[in-house]
Amino acid sequence: MVSQHITKGRVIGVGVGPGDPGLVTRKAWAIVQAAPVIAYPSAKGGESLARAIMAEAIAGEAVEIALTLPMNPNRAPAQAAYDECCVAMRGHLDQGTDVIVLCEGDPLFYGSFMYILARLRDDYEVEIVPGVTSIQGATATHRQAIGARDDIVTVLPCSLDDAALSEQIDRADAVVMMKVGRHMGRIKALLDAKNLLNKALYVSHASQPQELALPLADAPETAPYFSIILLYKGDDPWL
Amino acid sequence: MVSQHITKGRVIGVGVGPGDPGLVTRKAWAIVQAAPVIAYPSAKGGESLARAIMAEAIAGEAVEIALTLPMNPNRAPAQAAYDECCVAMRGHLDQGTDVIVLCEGDPLFYGSFMYILARLRDDYEVEIVPGVTSIQGATATHRQAIGARDDIVTVLPCSLDDAALSEQIDRADAVVMMKVGRHMGRIKALLDAKNLLNKALYVSHASQPQELALPLADAPETAPYFSIILLYKGDDPWL
Repeated sequence: MVSQHITKGRVIGVGVGPGDPGLVTRKAWAIVQAAPVIAYPSAKGGESLARAIMAEAIAGEAVEIALTLPMNPNRAPAQAAYDECCVAMRGHLDQGTDVIVLCEGDPLFYGSFMYILARLRDDYEVEIVPGVTSIQGATATHRQAIGARDDIVTVLPCSLDDAALSEQIDRADAVVMMKVGRHMGRIKALLDAKNLLNKALYVSHASQPQELALPLADAPETAPYFSIILLYKGDDPWL
Repeated sequence: MVSQHITKGRVIGVGVGPGDPGLVTRKAWAIVQAAPVIAYPSAKGGESLARAIMAEAIAGEAVEIALTLPMNPNRAPAQAAYDECCVAMRGHLDQGTDVIVLCEGDPLFYGSFMYILARLRDDYEVEIVPGVTSIQGATATHRQAIGARDDIVTVLPCSLDDAALSEQIDRADAVVMMKVGRHMGRIKALLDAKNLLNKALYVSHASQPQELALPLADAPETAPYFSIILLYKGDDPWL
């Protein structure tokens, strides 16, 4: 008997940008248009922002895999959930079919794709198509540069405690605070105590129809999880 | 006499990504295809990476303005050079014509566009089209995630002194070091002393034909100015 060798499919992690389908790269758009199998995160199998961004590019005959990803990847059951997510993808990959994984923003910057990558990279070839991050979306909305010359730019998840945030803010020239959500009140108070509240800018849903961009001092007390604060501490150094 | 009112043109800062024309966003591509006037930085009026990336999109009849930007924006003559750069753009803007400014990577992240923005924003409407940064290009090349969960990610220009770099590296979970250039030897020694050299990754010309991606320990001692080091300090936390 002759054993048949099947070339395995590739895993292609594709960044789809912050929300506006126009902010998808040409390469990402073309790959998705030709994709035989498309996977994307979806909250409990329901809505998927990544899929919505790419809706016009997805072919009618494409196989779609909605990935139900855990909301809190720190907890132990999350690991089993990620393993489970990979089962359907492995089925296609082992048959020689490429699987395209849609990722909000960029695949390798605060996303869930890296959990999938870690599980599949030893068995399959992986390609990454980088995307526009929500940080770039936010700075564009406010027309606020966030790093120049020898500036130190620090990205801080708002889940960090006040002491950690405070120390980092003090030592940076520019700060991007991610995932504001329920931390809004605490962050406002922290920046106010440093006399930095009036320099901070707030954005939610950057580049999407429901985009909200305001000075942080004017931002509502309840913020969505995926909202961002921009802080350039210095005076405008560009004139 | 009736005074005639001309609606001024808009300044549109367009991110063209790290180098691969496929990594330009669909919106940026379409704007450049329809652009009446296109400005871009060029070294002493010569080669322009931003223009090269967009060459296929630029229409034959478009007016092109090569901006000779100062290499060291900290020096006083630089300010006059930026003022000078804006003169030709103002001519078109005052006639009601939009001026599209091409920017490598993203317009508002360590670029020279912000010097142009600062000079024109009070007189003209400004729009920004965000782009894929060289950081995202570099992480994609190495398939190395650079921020997850509550990680602190710090971006450090290599022109900072050892003490500043060291302090920041110690306090971050992940570090991106920009503009390596002549600092390569110093940075390698600094990371080696911290037992972090073996975790660091090097990239130059991410996504371009001459891309070079290596473990930092294997990187050549002479690096181009626009090269990048990626350092994820923790163990792989994604399995």
